[in-house]
Amino acid sequence: MARYDWISLTTDYGLSDGFVAACHGVIARIAPSVRVIDVTHQVPPADVSRGAVVLAQTVPHLPPAVHVAVVDPGVGTARRAVAIEAPQGLLVGPDNGLLPPAAEALGGIRRAVVLDKAEWFADPVSPTFHGRDIFAPVAARLSVGGDLAAAGTGVDPATLVRLPEPIVVVGDGWLEAEVATVDRFGNVQLAAPGEALDRLGELLRVGGVSARRVVTFGETAPGALVVYVDSADRVAIAINGGRAVVALGVTPGDIVHITTA
Amino acid sequence: MARYDWISLTTDYGLSDGFVAACHGVIARIAPSVRVIDVTHQVPPADVSRGAVVLAQTVPHLPPAVHVAVVDPGVGTARRAVAIEAPQGLLVGPDNGLLPPAAEALGGIRRAVVLDKAEWFADPVSPTFHGRDIFAPVAARLSVGGDLAAAGTGVDPATLVRLPEPIVVVGDGWLEAEVATVDRFGNVQLAAPGEALDRLGELLRVGGVSARRVVTFGETAPGALVVYVDSADRVAIAINGGRAVVALGVTPGDIVHITTA
Amino acid sequence: MARYDWISLTTDYGLSDGFVAACHGVIARIAPSVRVIDVTHQVPPADVSRGAVVLAQTVPHLPPAVHVAVVDPGVGTARRAVAIEAPQGLLVGPDNGLLPPAAEALGGIRRAVVLDKAEWFADPVSPTFHGRDIFAPVAARLSVGGDLAAAGTGVDPATLVRLPEPIVVVGDGWLEAEVATVDRFGNVQLAAPGEALDRLGELLRVGGVSARRVVTFGETAPGALVVYVDSADRVAIAINGGRAVVALGVTPGDIVHITTA
Repeated sequence: MARYDWISLTTDYGLSDGFVAACHGVIARIAPSVRVIDVTHQVPPADVSRGAVVLAQTVPHLPPAVHVAVVDPGVGTARRAVAIEAPQGLLVGPDNGLLPPAAEALGGIRRAVVLDKAEWFADPVSPTFHGRDIFAPVAARLSVGGDLAAAGTGVDPATLVRLPEPIVVVGDGWLEAEVATVDRFGNVQLAAPGEALDRLGELLRVGGVSARRVVTFGETAPGALVVYVDSADRVAIAINGGRAVVALGVTPGDIVHITTA
Repeated sequence: MARYDWISLTTDYGLSDGFVAACHGVIARIAPSVRVIDVTHQVPPADVSRGAVVLAQTVPHLPPAVHVAVVDPGVGTARRAVAIEAPQGLLVGPDNGLLPPAAEALGGIRRAVVLDKAEWFADPVSPTFHGRDIFAPVAARLSVGGDLAAAGTGVDPATLVRLPEPIVVVGDGWLEAEVATVDRFGNVQLAAPGEALDRLGELLRVGGVSARRVVTFGETAPGALVVYVDSADRVAIAINGGRAVVALGVTPGDIVHITTA
Repeated sequence: MARYDWISLTTDYGLSDGFVAACHGVIARIAPSVRVIDVTHQVPPADVSRGAVVLAQTVPHLPPAVHVAVVDPGVGTARRAVAIEAPQGLLVGPDNGLLPPAAEALGGIRRAVVLDKAEWFADPVSPTFHGRDIFAPVAARLSVGGDLAAAGTGVDPATLVRLPEPIVVVGDGWLEAEVATVDRFGNVQLAAPGEALDRLGELLRVGGVSARRVVTFGETAPGALVVYVDSADRVAIAINGGRAVVALGVTPGDIVHITTA
């Protein structure tokens, strides 16, 4: 079976408790030579959409890995625990929509199993901490060569829970798209791919406010609203030296209109 | 002597300064092949109780390690610096109550030394940064096989400073316990062990408010107050999709009463 | 060529997005056996001075490494990307003043190159994420033995952008110095070296308020203002159990006066 030198972790556990370290510890005990890359543990509690966006945009830059993601408000209920095989890596986590976008970014879903083999888990399993007791041990065992087919029961990938597709509509001289995420700098990323800007001009209006299409922030004066293609190849809105999210007053899921001025 | 492949770090240094990295660097220079697991660096400044709780609940899930913990308002004063040997690991830090609960979680205190060998330290030692100049170098040297007996002068474990035992009283149909800690999700963990719930019913009152005993959060409607045994085997209180700490208005050290409804 | 087992990362990317992980991933793909020490990713957005101070005070405690630092409001504009060789390590980042203080701390600038070899970068390079696409890959290639001379075009170190020297004036019984930085504990570090206190007494006034020169915090009663030489050998001001930054109401760049009482 494939072996992986790396495991990535994406959670909403925060960094104030020992939850992340417990997952690192479980991995270290089962797969001591595997190394862990923390994607982020600051997903807002239970915000599956945010976790899915960050994970999908980060995995293409990571080495081949078993990617563990846990944003899991349904922990311990009937929601399924799954592992997914993609051409460029494995994903392990709850079946709540968190994993499929990252699987697509890794080449598509090739196979999926429901994690139902108790011998792959910690014993006992805490009903409120599957990251430590199910997902981390399963990922660690997969990383050292464990067989995906032995980790659980195969399921039709079409049955995996998926988040709704974000709204993106492109017309002649206009673009309408959902806010996908907002980063640390207050830059607002839309769900629209970068090429959606191709049919718009250089002078734009974002929800009625004048903006300019640029390649990078520093091309304009501080305070200017700019539209650009960001590092994940998405249409994004920023203010040079400021926080576009504040100026626009938007939040993920909101619709933003961009038109040629 | 025993060698350890892992060192864990628990501090109140935060992640905004270079303090944690300096400790990593000191370890890397002395013990380059040892790997570090960060438990947390977000212990509130000088909150020894919080550090002790997080450390004690995390170490059972880590591989055999030298555990360094530094929450140390008395740095540079007469408070002792110590190393403790437990059956399942070593602990290094200030003698202010931070380490003993973790030592108990690792099988009990077998031996303790006061760190008084300057040749094990950085030279010079900053009077305000013993994490970098005393605890990290001592831990690194112990991890590569340094002898605990050579690291300091043996002391009677009974002389180690201990935090007061938290209040936990269990009666017939009621339970009274101190809040031990509050996690990122606003879940309130009491000092009472999970089995303290055995003598209570399924319908409960927490400080006068109706609550239900559950196994995991998602069993009830969003907004419902629930009591459960958490992943550290403690009685805990949560709100499905909410923050129990806000609803209860408690803080660590407060007493919570739970009664059968 | 020199090889480095370690890379350090200092950025203003925060820990909520996947930006830091993407850099870790790029390094892991190019230099899988290199290990990464995160100095901090919590530099306030675009605060080059803060990044420079943290980096310069941390690198002396790290093992020999390629130090990547990215606080880069001018990303994608004409500002240069550089690599600097010092006797005790390499530095990689934007030419905006961020790197030279750390280079001095590592023994001085021996050589500098402008990073202008596209074959060392990711392809394509995002105009807004040079950390991932230029600095991380260049650092990774340098760490595995890549030749600095091949990484770019040599430039006169005198042409590197430098931050203004902070104000430090020492007189007979007084000291005037800029606030260099404020740490997690609210301790206020001045730009003055520790020896600047030699000519002052034990009883002091800080901006008119009584203070005492101490070796460490715990020597005085809680709440007392103290002046001491901190762990980076700078004059610093603290309140035992409190936050000096609040009491003094200062911010980096402000001038603080200390006089013998």
